[in-house]
Amino acid sequence: MHLYTMSASPNGRRVAVVMKEKGIEIPTTEIDLRGGENLGVEFKAKNPVARVPVLETDAGTFIAETVAISRYLESLVPQPNLFGQSGEEQAIIEMWNRRAEISLMIPVAQAFRNLTGVFKDREKISKEWGEISAEVARNAMPMFETQLEQTEYLAGDQFSIADITLALTLTFAKAVGQDLFQAPAVITWHEKVSARESFN
Amino acid sequence: MHLYTMSASPNGRRVAVVMKEKGIEIPTTEIDLRGGENLGVEFKAKNPVARVPVLETDAGTFIAETVAISRYLESLVPQPNLFGQSGEEQAIIEMWNRRAEISLMIPVAQAFRNLTGVFKDREKISKEWGEISAEVARNAMPMFETQLEQTEYLAGDQFSIADITLALTLTFAKAVGQDLFQAPAVITWHEKVSARESFN
Repeated sequence: MHLYTMSASPNGRRVAVVMKEKGIEIPTTEIDLRGGENLGVEFKAKNPVARVPVLETDAGTFIAETVAISRYLESLVPQPNLFGQSGEEQAIIEMWNRRAEISLMIPVAQAFRNLTGVFKDREKISKEWGEISAEVARNAMPMFETQLEQTEYLAGDQFSIADITLALTLTFAKAVGQDLFQAPAVITWHEKVSARESFN
Repeated sequence: MHLYTMSASPNGRRVAVVMKEKGIEIPTTEIDLRGGENLGVEFKAKNPVARVPVLETDAGTFIAETVAISRYLESLVPQPNLFGQSGEEQAIIEMWNRRAEISLMIPVAQAFRNLTGVFKDREKISKEWGEISAEVARNAMPMFETQLEQTEYLAGDQFSIADITLALTLTFAKAVGQDLFQAPAVITWHEKVSARESFN
């Protein structure tokens, strides 16, 4: 296998944590997103969406999308389990992972891109939407606080892909000036999760 | 089980197609989104994100998020398979389903909500972002055209959740004034998929 990624990006970090949790090492090529390497013909042949990470399998298939890659790695190395075992466990983990993505990760990313204009050489931006997105992200936090007051990990008793998504989104948000650490259960949980070996 | 949904919404339709493909019938309560029924205390106890659909399992667990519900239904009724069997099949289907969601369904929804202001009683909107999102959706179409020139279904030989997501997004987009049917492979594929019994 071979991984094309930008290790420092939130999605690069998500796959890296999954790999470390499972003890998987994969030869890696760093893609220079800011320099636009992902927009070239060579990279778009691997992923037409022009995003990282992308995993090339031993059969030469290119798998893009962080969660698709992570689920594929789980099929190769099932333990420790990150996506649930029973149908209900899998559904609850997918639900919370999607809540973290849709209610938080996407608004944080849209706020970042539209407020800073980091990729304005390649996409149209709206500062107005950046402000709205930052507020949407802030307004999503009480749901996570309420859940983490009741459960050890985001989707229940088990550390899962949902924790990886939420924790790295919050870390990224703070690094780019969106501090979403306002409530105690989220803060305590984030410290615990971030202290895992796989996060370092 | 019990389903809370708005059958006419794109996500309501996605779950309905999955159920029909698998021959599953579930007692259903329609939620009046335009009237704000989803914003009330009673509904938010089922899903704090205040979105439909939500599935209540026989054990009384509430599963939200369309794909989480669909995957749960697949665990109960595995055939016909909509999420793939091998690890690689599952990853490829998840990749294409996410491309349809992230590159098309979300931009179409953001264009719709921001341009029409249909939910402006409950969310801030930006017409500027609505215009940008409509353009992002249009720009995503060549990727789907290129894929459907080469494969019978979006993720390969097998009809899957990725087809359901893409087909219903395109149908919805056209219904709200975003006509994305510009290229022949997408049009032919959409007619074929939309003619399935489960879509009617």
